[in-house]
Amino acid sequence: MKSVPAGSLQLDGAGKLRHFLTIEGLNAPLLTRIMDTAESFSSVTEQTVKKVPLLRGKTVVNLFFETSTRTRTTFELAAKRLSADVLNINIATSATAKGESLLDTIRNIEAMQVDMFVVRHAHSGAAHFIAQHVAPHVSVINAGDGRHAHPTQAMLDMFTIRRSGRDFATLKVAIVGDILHSRVARSEIQALRMLGVRDIRAVAPRTLLPAQAEDFGVSLWTDLDAGIEGVDVVVMLRLQRERMSGAFIPSEGEYFARFGLTERRLARAKPDAIVMHPGPINRGVEIDSQVADGLQSVILQQVHYGIPVRMAIMSLAMRSGQDAVAGGRQGT
Amino acid sequence: MKSVPAGSLQLDGAGKLRHFLTIEGLNAPLLTRIMDTAESFSSVTEQTVKKVPLLRGKTVVNLFFETSTRTRTTFELAAKRLSADVLNINIATSATAKGESLLDTIRNIEAMQVDMFVVRHAHSGAAHFIAQHVAPHVSVINAGDGRHAHPTQAMLDMFTIRRSGRDFATLKVAIVGDILHSRVARSEIQALRMLGVRDIRAVAPRTLLPAQAEDFGVSLWTDLDAGIEGVDVVVMLRLQRERMSGAFIPSEGEYFARFGLTERRLARAKPDAIVMHPGPINRGVEIDSQVADGLQSVILQQVHYGIPVRMAIMSLAMRSGQDAVAGGRQGT
Amino acid sequence: MKSVPAGSLQLDGAGKLRHFLTIEGLNAPLLTRIMDTAESFSSVTEQTVKKVPLLRGKTVVNLFFETSTRTRTTFELAAKRLSADVLNINIATSATAKGESLLDTIRNIEAMQVDMFVVRHAHSGAAHFIAQHVAPHVSVINAGDGRHAHPTQAMLDMFTIRRSGRDFATLKVAIVGDILHSRVARSEIQALRMLGVRDIRAVAPRTLLPAQAEDFGVSLWTDLDAGIEGVDVVVMLRLQRERMSGAFIPSEGEYFARFGLTERRLARAKPDAIVMHPGPINRGVEIDSQVADGLQSVILQQVHYGIPVRMAIMSLAMRSGQDAVAGGRQGT
Repeated sequence: MKSVPAGSLQLDGAGKLRHFLTIEGLNAPLLTRIMDTAESFSSVTEQTVKKVPLLRGKTVVNLFFETSTRTRTTFELAAKRLSADVLNINIATSATAKGESLLDTIRNIEAMQVDMFVVRHAHSGAAHFIAQHVAPHVSVINAGDGRHAHPTQAMLDMFTIRRSGRDFATLKVAIVGDILHSRVARSEIQALRMLGVRDIRAVAPRTLLPAQAEDFGVSLWTDLDAGIEGVDVVVMLRLQRERMSGAFIPSEGEYFARFGLTERRLARAKPDAIVMHPGPINRGVEIDSQVADGLQSVILQQVHYGIPVRMAIMSLAMRSGQDAVAGGRQGT
Repeated sequence: MKSVPAGSLQLDGAGKLRHFLTIEGLNAPLLTRIMDTAESFSSVTEQTVKKVPLLRGKTVVNLFFETSTRTRTTFELAAKRLSADVLNINIATSATAKGESLLDTIRNIEAMQVDMFVVRHAHSGAAHFIAQHVAPHVSVINAGDGRHAHPTQAMLDMFTIRRSGRDFATLKVAIVGDILHSRVARSEIQALRMLGVRDIRAVAPRTLLPAQAEDFGVSLWTDLDAGIEGVDVVVMLRLQRERMSGAFIPSEGEYFARFGLTERRLARAKPDAIVMHPGPINRGVEIDSQVADGLQSVILQQVHYGIPVRMAIMSLAMRSGQDAVAGGRQGT
Repeated sequence: MKSVPAGSLQLDGAGKLRHFLTIEGLNAPLLTRIMDTAESFSSVTEQTVKKVPLLRGKTVVNLFFETSTRTRTTFELAAKRLSADVLNINIATSATAKGESLLDTIRNIEAMQVDMFVVRHAHSGAAHFIAQHVAPHVSVINAGDGRHAHPTQAMLDMFTIRRSGRDFATLKVAIVGDILHSRVARSEIQALRMLGVRDIRAVAPRTLLPAQAEDFGVSLWTDLDAGIEGVDVVVMLRLQRERMSGAFIPSEGEYFARFGLTERRLARAKPDAIVMHPGPINRGVEIDSQVADGLQSVILQQVHYGIPVRMAIMSLAMRSGQDAVAGGRQGT
């Protein structure tokens, strides 16, 4: 799949969000606007009647080429709370099995007058590819593509940090775990840097650190005790079980011994440091239960904020799509 | 899963329904209130526009660890007719496959601000366990757990009996079939007794009768002709095909010969006796087609009433949850 | 499954649509009324808020005994845009697996007060059979049954032709491909004839032409170059891959060489001829990509019109069902 600069795809002429594919190419005011909008929906998710009619009459298609009940669920809930109609399409069991190409599948669903694709795919660039080919009124949201990006996860993490009352300018963050294969880590680092965070530490065994990590503007650490020292935020990554059988790490037990987050280790961070994890957690592998369930853990807040943040991204992208179509009509 | 008295879990301080896990620990006025509420929804399911806005903006999660299209469908319809948003999560294909614990799954979905879990699980006590751990505003409805309970089925059966114009105080009921392994039978007997039924007969081969059945307040019968004599209601249980290959019964044919409900046998009951079955029926195994489709059969009415009865239980539980949260806020 | 004349089943006493099972037995004014109604919904699918409240409070059940994401999706969208509640039931994974008969399954779902069944089944006559057994207020829509019929596809094709500004009275149509096994072709030919088309050509290898094709009122052609000469509309059928391994055609390559639609061949049709295909297309098997994506292709318009056409059929059938019930009540 060929590459087009994401910035030109994601933003319309007025700099508004059109697709949400990757943090790369966006800008701090836009990320802030997403968080401000999420703030306004956040009260929505706490009141009795949670629905707002912003996407009433719109059709959102969850196009999942990779099963992920958790992510699909958050997007489905976010779309329903915006009053959209939601269609779940699991492509593994669908027309592509009849030999139809990805592009034909997209064009067909698009022809049914849908308004948004939420795409999850095992290949990097899939959401990007789809965004290049949809009609002007359709928005594409990347719900995770291969090792490339998981930008809505990054945004809900930024929102969680902001809600905890911290200032990005002076923030120290340690990201711990399989940086090399993690789309969460890539998107997270980009978002943190864009929001002005200067001290970002990638902490992992050398085999799970990317060679070019310094280029990302992060410092590299292979010792968790040192890397966590004095940070405000610890982001633990999920250790994919399939890595364990490979040459990347010797064993689950040894991984926990060196990189598992325990209370003793967490004590090296700031006393009020928060602990984040994209889930699902592996208790006793990358994180100790006492930490996961402890007072400094904001793991369930992350899940909670995932709804208003996704509502914000969906409604901002949809609004821009409408402007584009309205503008195009005027221009004709 | 440890046991906590169900009564203290299911009812709030004011004795209102908070979770609906088992008939045990409830009381006759509450069962009557459920039936009265179902009565009010029953007209709803017969008019043109069936929806009532009682659960508008609420999110109901069908959390099925065991596939059951029929039960899932009735809860989905009941929730939609209360105007709730419904999320179907089939856990067999979900996050638990990634090694997440049941409790982590629950906490994560709960963090998405859902309001109700409808739980079906192969293990006894699963719904109970979940109810012990959810937030104060969340209600749990048991849609069948192992051999333990299927209380919504029991309630729709009670409603069906009441709608047929019978008086519980003078009712004679025969429950026929695999009492030993049936969650329906357990819940049914509890509900009948709670509503004041004194003549409840468990009719089955000795191998399918529980040893302690007398403790339940039922009489034991191993001869259908005798057991059915003069009853008002015959509840036929589904013979699970997996029992047939075991030592419990000799063969399907022999089971039908001894315990299958035929017109000839039904003639021993009262002339206006009704025949019930939780479905799906095995024609020619536990019930003859002439009886299943005959004038005394109320099997499809049971399915029909399943919607308003589940609407009643869901709306009563949700109301109590709201009171609890409101009360908690006042108390703070 | 025994056969009852479809006309008497599909139309009510006043000649209004009650079920939509097959084109056979319908009439030109009714097909025109469906297209007129679709026209009125067509603007609906183009405006911002797409929903109309015609089926509010109604429950539409997608009862799929055969997986078809594409068809299921169009019916789901059509129903949701009519504001109905939609229930997807995939019967392969459902109660019939527990040994329940088709009729028991239908009666049970029907008892939940549903209003419409959209049925897809591998056996000819399944939708017909279900329509014979449902309650007076329930409508059945055939979404494809075996080799028998796919009438909603035929209607969206008629609508696509009408929208292209052509007159049925003078239309020349070539249908190319596996006529023998195609439910699309059967329904298509019936609809075209009913609307007054006199020149319908079935073009295929002799092994894929039905023996009695002349009875259908079509001419038979085994040479595509000759068959396509001067037509207004070319309908390409999907070549089912399972045919290729059989004795029907020698090889995919040879099929394309003789019956694949290329630009060179299309040049033999009228210069403004349109190319249709029910999808999903096999690029390079029955159709060349240049044609499929070319200016004369209306393949994606067909998908697009599938929504308003299905909305039209569903709303017309539902209206008649209500009349029937209202009339029945008055008569009692």
